[in-house]
Amino acid sequence: MRTAVLGVGLIGGSIGLAARERLGSEVVGWGRTEATLDRALALGALDRVAASVEDACTDADVVFCTSPISVLPELAAKALQASGPDTVVTDAGSTKRELVAELGGDERFIGGHPLAGAETAGVQNARADLFDGARWYLTPTEHSSGILYDRLQRLVSDLGARPQAIDAEAHDRLMATISHLPHVLADVLAAQVAAELSRDSERMPDVGPSFRDATRVAGSNPAIWTDIFSANRGAIVAAIEDVVTRLRQAGETIAAGDRDAIAAWHASAGADRRRLLETEPGAGPLREVRVVVPNRPGIVAELALALGDAGVNIEDMALHPAADMRSGAVSLWVAGDEQAQRVAALVGELGHSATALSEGE
Amino acid sequence: MRTAVLGVGLIGGSIGLAARERLGSEVVGWGRTEATLDRALALGALDRVAASVEDACTDADVVFCTSPISVLPELAAKALQASGPDTVVTDAGSTKRELVAELGGDERFIGGHPLAGAETAGVQNARADLFDGARWYLTPTEHSSGILYDRLQRLVSDLGARPQAIDAEAHDRLMATISHLPHVLADVLAAQVAAELSRDSERMPDVGPSFRDATRVAGSNPAIWTDIFSANRGAIVAAIEDVVTRLRQAGETIAAGDRDAIAAWHASAGADRRRLLETEPGAGPLREVRVVVPNRPGIVAELALALGDAGVNIEDMALHPAADMRSGAVSLWVAGDEQAQRVAALVGELGHSATALSEGE
Repeated sequence: MRTAVLGVGLIGGSIGLAARERLGSEVVGWGRTEATLDRALALGALDRVAASVEDACTDADVVFCTSPISVLPELAAKALQASGPDTVVTDAGSTKRELVAELGGDERFIGGHPLAGAETAGVQNARADLFDGARWYLTPTEHSSGILYDRLQRLVSDLGARPQAIDAEAHDRLMATISHLPHVLADVLAAQVAAELSRDSERMPDVGPSFRDATRVAGSNPAIWTDIFSANRGAIVAAIEDVVTRLRQAGETIAAGDRDAIAAWHASAGADRRRLLETEPGAGPLREVRVVVPNRPGIVAELALALGDAGVNIEDMALHPAADMRSGAVSLWVAGDEQAQRVAALVGELGHSATALSEGE
Repeated sequence: MRTAVLGVGLIGGSIGLAARERLGSEVVGWGRTEATLDRALALGALDRVAASVEDACTDADVVFCTSPISVLPELAAKALQASGPDTVVTDAGSTKRELVAELGGDERFIGGHPLAGAETAGVQNARADLFDGARWYLTPTEHSSGILYDRLQRLVSDLGARPQAIDAEAHDRLMATISHLPHVLADVLAAQVAAELSRDSERMPDVGPSFRDATRVAGSNPAIWTDIFSANRGAIVAAIEDVVTRLRQAGETIAAGDRDAIAAWHASAGADRRRLLETEPGAGPLREVRVVVPNRPGIVAELALALGDAGVNIEDMALHPAADMRSGAVSLWVAGDEQAQRVAALVGELGHSATALSEGE
């Protein structure tokens, strides 16, 4: 079997590593930067470097196009031209509608999007297990070859991922809400707070942990996000309109001042979030434990080490430094009430004050 | 000197500890729960428990009302009645307009709001240094006694905080934007994603780290937030209208598909956030270092311990577990480029891949 990878960064490199290790496939790579290709070879992500897209695609069973989404349509079209009738061509771009509209008429093209690796980039971070357990969306159309779709979804599964077919439009709408909208909100909130504080002459604004968390991704990865905002603009604009409607409803609830209605709205959002972040079925929903600590080097280590020694896995963490930067609180999220109680007890033994928050607190 | 504290939780208890330790003041406490008052006594936050509000306020130089904001107007009015002509009465509520409108005509009442302690609650977490370096807003009116204002701002400063006078309306508008709006956005986003995903039959939704961070405070502390949303509804509704306007503008920028305009908008938000989160003047702006790690118990400890040993202080941290829960990335924020480079080098020595992100990445 032969796998072609066009564009060898984090995703392409990881596909190469996994295909060689787990599928026993020969992997041929092509890209625009020689140094990157050399590195991919050295890391074992490729068997050989192809001289051209045509060279890479010849006799390939599957072609993965993993370039930035702005150049994907051109690259994937070229790959289809260079590939034979029995080759399935796919991609790993984070938006699908435009690409599928352009190429979905070809029975050999099936769009794809693995939800993995968003936090890093570069072939140096490639790993054979990058896709283990990750959702991998596939966007076949009515023109797609059934045989080729079946091959692709099996391949994706063998790479460790969980393939799921989804309509390209539905995919982009879903991503617009769960991934792109949070980025838009972070940007807008950062700008609004900056504007509000610039009325004030004060040098050091006093923004708190809620602002810090809510804007974590503001302005992140400008090149990638400009691509995404641009490629998925229709669905993102629709998601913005939805959130505007919800904000107006929230504004009306708050303006009316009915405490029961406000409490119900607020509590329901908390329940929504917990439900969305539930991890494995057995482990129970995420529970937060708040710990008051001195804000000195080593304190996070002390906590995490003690919990690690006890076999507790921290699913999520947030630090809340106090204004003096000498003290603060740490929120730890673990799976299930039982673990949360254990964490509170363990932290107490270290001499810190810890509270396992009950649901809705 | 005598300090009265009405309501002895985290804030009241910390005022008591600091006033006794740093001001050498006698501290008299009153509250509705006997067990809490006993605990405050045992912790050294009070010299004695008063039998009534009247008893607490008699001969007090300053009265701090630190009850939940829904009962503040009643409590502060009672304190003013019970206090003599030379007593300054203040509070620690997170909204100010309503209270000041009601009581600001009395020259002895000056509203207050320390930005500290939001992460925990309860007198058991009280600390004498809770306010060190924290902004403490004071909201005098044209009726306020200059002598009493001067005394209060000096007291607050002696408790370790940085007092700043602000108009009550401006305070509530500022808080609406920097603190209350992030909570509204978190709630709205959690609800919208839940609604979008409920169209899907899938059991395990695949929400990512951007959703996780953006909704961290969704549904938090229902009692406190119902009070705040209700008390500050005017300013919050105005902040919602502002954010709706900005969202519509962002929507137009995105809809037009002008990549340069999108990139400029997005980058500007990133710059806004960095500016808002700059810490001490000498230390430099926050820089992010991304580290790829196996997601096992102890790994956060390993990282944090190594950095702590090297004297690096982690200002903020976010964990991004991969879908398989066996691997992931950790984002660490430290102050300044130099420290970010050091962190990347130290983490590299531990055998992990680390990237110090340059500005705007």
